[in-house]
Amino acid sequence: MMSVAEFTLPLIVTTPDAWAEDALEDLDSLLNDHAHLEKKAGQNALELLHRWPEPSPPENWTAAMTAVAKDEVEHLGIVLRLISRRGGRLTKSHRNDYASALRRLVRPGGEAETIDRLMVSALIEARSCERFEILSRCCPDPQLARVYGGLWASEKGHYLSFIDLARQVADRTDVEEDVEIRWKDMLASESRIIQEQRPGSRMHSWYS
Amino acid sequence: MMSVAEFTLPLIVTTPDAWAEDALEDLDSLLNDHAHLEKKAGQNALELLHRWPEPSPPENWTAAMTAVAKDEVEHLGIVLRLISRRGGRLTKSHRNDYASALRRLVRPGGEAETIDRLMVSALIEARSCERFEILSRCCPDPQLARVYGGLWASEKGHYLSFIDLARQVADRTDVEEDVEIRWKDMLASESRIIQEQRPGSRMHSWYS
Repeated sequence: MMSVAEFTLPLIVTTPDAWAEDALEDLDSLLNDHAHLEKKAGQNALELLHRWPEPSPPENWTAAMTAVAKDEVEHLGIVLRLISRRGGRLTKSHRNDYASALRRLVRPGGEAETIDRLMVSALIEARSCERFEILSRCCPDPQLARVYGGLWASEKGHYLSFIDLARQVADRTDVEEDVEIRWKDMLASESRIIQEQRPGSRMHSWYS
Repeated sequence: MMSVAEFTLPLIVTTPDAWAEDALEDLDSLLNDHAHLEKKAGQNALELLHRWPEPSPPENWTAAMTAVAKDEVEHLGIVLRLISRRGGRLTKSHRNDYASALRRLVRPGGEAETIDRLMVSALIEARSCERFEILSRCCPDPQLARVYGGLWASEKGHYLSFIDLARQVADRTDVEEDVEIRWKDMLASESRIIQEQRPGSRMHSWYS
């Protein structure tokens, strides 16, 4: 497995370790937010399962989506067990302003929508990946730190899957020259959006 | 693990083995239908994850829903690999008149809706369970027969989880005396609905 040091995420804005102080301040809230994110990531992968561009999916489309969904549901189980062991429980509703803002970037219709949905998925995975790496270093509970380290590796794989599929879709259409421009735009938007988030014990908060 | 002979499903109408002849006639279609069902079952469990009745979920609610979702996504992966090995691929859209008809039985609002959604989930799992048992005996491919046998055991567990949760929800409300009556009504409706289905290579078809 590639180590953290060997792998560079494409994110424009890097989260400082100071974020972890806020995030870990209320661990119950952080775990609750995290569980909801895993659930939504699983739902997103299942929803994308047959949203491939016509006439046919890239060869690894359904396998990649199913693998992501499987991982996310497994992570959901892990996080729910952590919550339960701490005597907590999942909240009924959940708000993620960061993901909502990213989703508003999606151009509706056709392959542009497909590419954008894949890129938004890639961005969320990349940012989550970065945050898990920070948590794996800054979390004082060694067991939880190991969990975060494992999630870092998994989310990294998901980010790569989504951006690879986005490029494959673009490659088959007239937009192939634009895909890297679009990705740069999306990365720029993400860096603005993440810094607009309220601080707090959430996976996609900014820091105070 | 309990064997097929020791376990009785509550279904009023039993599917004759003759159904398997129709179902297995076009194995590609059967596997495609099956993959879509696993995906929808996974989505259903994730959707129900925080649809518990107030003020709090029955103790095993989130664990049960996560376990079902995990199993269904794993099954989806198994079925997609079978499809891929046969040189086929998933269709983009999918229709399941049986599940749609069952969902129309759900009384909207409050705990009646929760109980009904759990019962509909239990019915679909129970009928799928019955069908997998038939396929495990009637499928000429021994490898596939083993897959179906494994799915039988899993769907049986899901059926039990859903009906147990429905009873737990009812138990905490004024409707506790009615839950067995409602379940009997639901089973009666299911037996009518399954017999109304067109024959064909689908998991929830009737036979010709």
